[in-house]
Amino acid sequence: MAQNRSDVQYETGIGTSDLHSIQVLGHDLAGELLGKVGFAELAYWLATKRRPTPGQLRVFEAVLVSLADHGFTPTAIAARLTYYSAPDSLQGAIAAGLLGGGSRFLGVTEDTGRYLHEVLASLGETDAFTDADWDEAARSALLAAKAARLKVPGLGHPNHKDGDPRTPVIFQIAEDEGVLGPHLTLFRAIGRVAPEVLGRALPLNGAGVAGAALADAGLPLSMLRGFALLARTAGLIGQLAEELENPIAPAVYDEVDRNARYSPPTEHTPPEE
Amino acid sequence: MAQNRSDVQYETGIGTSDLHSIQVLGHDLAGELLGKVGFAELAYWLATKRRPTPGQLRVFEAVLVSLADHGFTPTAIAARLTYYSAPDSLQGAIAAGLLGGGSRFLGVTEDTGRYLHEVLASLGETDAFTDADWDEAARSALLAAKAARLKVPGLGHPNHKDGDPRTPVIFQIAEDEGVLGPHLTLFRAIGRVAPEVLGRALPLNGAGVAGAALADAGLPLSMLRGFALLARTAGLIGQLAEELENPIAPAVYDEVDRNARYSPPTEHTPPEE
Amino acid sequence: MAQNRSDVQYETGIGTSDLHSIQVLGHDLAGELLGKVGFAELAYWLATKRRPTPGQLRVFEAVLVSLADHGFTPTAIAARLTYYSAPDSLQGAIAAGLLGGGSRFLGVTEDTGRYLHEVLASLGETDAFTDADWDEAARSALLAAKAARLKVPGLGHPNHKDGDPRTPVIFQIAEDEGVLGPHLTLFRAIGRVAPEVLGRALPLNGAGVAGAALADAGLPLSMLRGFALLARTAGLIGQLAEELENPIAPAVYDEVDRNARYSPPTEHTPPEE
Amino acid sequence: MAQNRSDVQYETGIGTSDLHSIQVLGHDLAGELLGKVGFAELAYWLATKRRPTPGQLRVFEAVLVSLADHGFTPTAIAARLTYYSAPDSLQGAIAAGLLGGGSRFLGVTEDTGRYLHEVLASLGETDAFTDADWDEAARSALLAAKAARLKVPGLGHPNHKDGDPRTPVIFQIAEDEGVLGPHLTLFRAIGRVAPEVLGRALPLNGAGVAGAALADAGLPLSMLRGFALLARTAGLIGQLAEELENPIAPAVYDEVDRNARYSPPTEHTPPEE
Repeated sequence: MAQNRSDVQYETGIGTSDLHSIQVLGHDLAGELLGKVGFAELAYWLATKRRPTPGQLRVFEAVLVSLADHGFTPTAIAARLTYYSAPDSLQGAIAAGLLGGGSRFLGVTEDTGRYLHEVLASLGETDAFTDADWDEAARSALLAAKAARLKVPGLGHPNHKDGDPRTPVIFQIAEDEGVLGPHLTLFRAIGRVAPEVLGRALPLNGAGVAGAALADAGLPLSMLRGFALLARTAGLIGQLAEELENPIAPAVYDEVDRNARYSPPTEHTPPEE
Repeated sequence: MAQNRSDVQYETGIGTSDLHSIQVLGHDLAGELLGKVGFAELAYWLATKRRPTPGQLRVFEAVLVSLADHGFTPTAIAARLTYYSAPDSLQGAIAAGLLGGGSRFLGVTEDTGRYLHEVLASLGETDAFTDADWDEAARSALLAAKAARLKVPGLGHPNHKDGDPRTPVIFQIAEDEGVLGPHLTLFRAIGRVAPEVLGRALPLNGAGVAGAALADAGLPLSMLRGFALLARTAGLIGQLAEELENPIAPAVYDEVDRNARYSPPTEHTPPEE
Repeated sequence: MAQNRSDVQYETGIGTSDLHSIQVLGHDLAGELLGKVGFAELAYWLATKRRPTPGQLRVFEAVLVSLADHGFTPTAIAARLTYYSAPDSLQGAIAAGLLGGGSRFLGVTEDTGRYLHEVLASLGETDAFTDADWDEAARSALLAAKAARLKVPGLGHPNHKDGDPRTPVIFQIAEDEGVLGPHLTLFRAIGRVAPEVLGRALPLNGAGVAGAALADAGLPLSMLRGFALLARTAGLIGQLAEELENPIAPAVYDEVDRNARYSPPTEHTPPEE
Repeated sequence: MAQNRSDVQYETGIGTSDLHSIQVLGHDLAGELLGKVGFAELAYWLATKRRPTPGQLRVFEAVLVSLADHGFTPTAIAARLTYYSAPDSLQGAIAAGLLGGGSRFLGVTEDTGRYLHEVLASLGETDAFTDADWDEAARSALLAAKAARLKVPGLGHPNHKDGDPRTPVIFQIAEDEGVLGPHLTLFRAIGRVAPEVLGRALPLNGAGVAGAALADAGLPLSMLRGFALLARTAGLIGQLAEELENPIAPAVYDEVDRNARYSPPTEHTPPEE
């Protein structure tokens, strides 16, 4: 039927191909990109449609490296158990691992980026801010969070109570590369005034610093969780390659099964039948 | 109960941490890796527990770049539709996109690597092979596949019928870097003799060459699909960032819905009730 | 190390087994459940640890039937595209379909249940409420939502503008079975006073009514989305069985690919290199 | 462009809707299905486009009940760990659980159904088979498997070494309902002759019997894994509802973390740099 004819067009600026060439981001993949652009560089470019500066790229690579693996996290264990159950589907095991990339563990990168962005939006022009201005802004933000009984994302770490070792290094790289911008600056000030406002020192969580650094390096807030997931994909491949060589999933399963305690529900009200 | 006590240990060589440090692959993450190791380099290292040589790394990065995006593939469309339905879960949209990374599209990288590995295993020592020896080996392999009516993975491309533009570039990079090994060499010979054995020229698929190149660059066959998935994760982030700015999923949904033709099942045999 | 010895126990009331028997919910699976308990009945029981009354069960089954399929939804299309890409992994295609079960489409069941629950919690004891009391409560709730410029979940439907055909039937079944409780009653009152408060009639969405009915039938709010997913799993199996017989995914892919319009990013600021 | 105009139609027999009605399988959802068709009945109907007979339905419900939960399986643990990591996405946790539904654990239902179907296809007409004929067919099949050193799917159980308690009950229900057909009959004969051919008694695995029963009940082999996944979805909702009340995931994570033994890779060959 004529009215069903579609003139719709699906617009994209990412990739296309024809008989002789493949285009990615408007460049000839074979002639202009392969061997000339690194993988992380392309990942940045795909997400922003801007090629990173060398400084932005170095921060981006460092952040991805910082987020790639954290040992036996719940998501790594879930991926290994899934691979054990369905060894025929590597994509299923990786997907299962990424599905744990939600609020509790991987979320801090995105949450911190978004939180800092919101505070910055309320500050107006900050180009001429002195350290004292930043401290003042951080103090207000912490007091507001305290009054609202809200946790500030990225402040504190469950294990690294004396300081997350990733934190100073990411700050240093961003500074060296000239991309230490307002998100990192505000976050540093928050760390500085936290003892005074909250009554105790709280380390800046490295995954939170990662979010601030990604924002300062020009990456979109809406995709911060995505970069944590990209980094984690590399980590999960490592976990699954190791699982194939030296599995732990059978022992985890056995441990849970052996130490299960069955305590079935008691039925107070049998159904009327 | 005493017999339930567990002395099991979960061994890993990937990551661990304590109060003051994080170790990845036996190195101090903050002091030795951040800013000093690139993301693709770490991904290689995690998968193999060997740090790549500069040549292996350059091939690895080129292959990841070659696999990152292929425009509006079924998996990219599936990821966009999932993000449209559940915008609150970026990890779900990425996972949905990766779940299409199975046999039909992404599988060719792994399948080609495994196929070449099997042929190589049957050849014994190939260090002294001449081009004529490789051609002979390729001819035997193709004849065997033909007799068994099996498709050779990585031979032919649905669109690039005159040659996949990625193919010569990946060969060149591998050659320049001194990592053009037996998998690529055999695959090149297969392309060379295919017209003679199969009666028509078939281009070497770039995704298949990717698999051969990864194998020659020292990456494990069991994880080849994983690298295609890692590359694709970067592509999916690009697709989803674009979807957020300029969505196509509502139009895809609308197109399918508008052009649906309902043809309900006819019930020949009503249930006896 | 002694301190690593674990006395942890993993408590569960769901399932266990030994050499001769399998227990589910404290009952012998083979002797007490198979052939004696229906599948939906077991699903209710597993989620609540209470066996449903016949009335609760009939409402639960009706709600699951009402949510099982909605034709070519984005999630159904995503599942079909994933199955096309990875036909070797049915579980991946179903998982991809479920991953679209988020806020935009499937979420209304859970959102409506939770919204009604919150309003009810603010009303105190409602056992003696008359219709006029319910209307008054509904009016207050709508006015509060209007003042806060919030959308009331479950009010309105994109297609069924004159009324969702599922709505009166679910109310009737709940009434017939004696499980029409406060959630459905409040929701009905909201529908009744909506024209007066909002200036136009808005139909009660059937998926929202489903959420209210599940809550009145004794199912936990935290799992309402889960039941929508359970229902949708049956629908996805139907979609994928049909896809196997009479595929649409290749045509969807072809349509998008053929009508793609490539508009690559323009680079205003080349990176300083 | 005219040539881009699409006349494609996406045919479906499942669902559609218009302003006033919703159709599922050619029936009015509100008027003909809600409250009149059970959920399992609809699931059968969606998968086959045939409404089940009462006998087929009873077997189908019993099989779904038999497969819904098996306690702390690897997939249940993976789903719980994923829910712990990403509590904001119930669909992600369920999807992660289903992704373990692959070859090792859930696969036996499908594998057994397919295996029996292949043997049956080789037997020709079996309507007049006596027990002796079935034994002879089973003997041949087992001898062929033994010669090829292949495992017969569904034969044996890791825990229920003296017999899977589900097995006789499913056979009995199928017999009572008049749907005990060739798949179950052949499988029973295989169990009967196994000691003679293989030198030891091997119980018929209940999940394998489930596959045979589904095939005899008229369900398509290509979707057998799907029904195991549908059943498991109900089980996973139970697992996750319990996890919310009484979590085990933090203890599993802690156990693995506490008993991790770090053994980093030794680097024999430093990269030439």
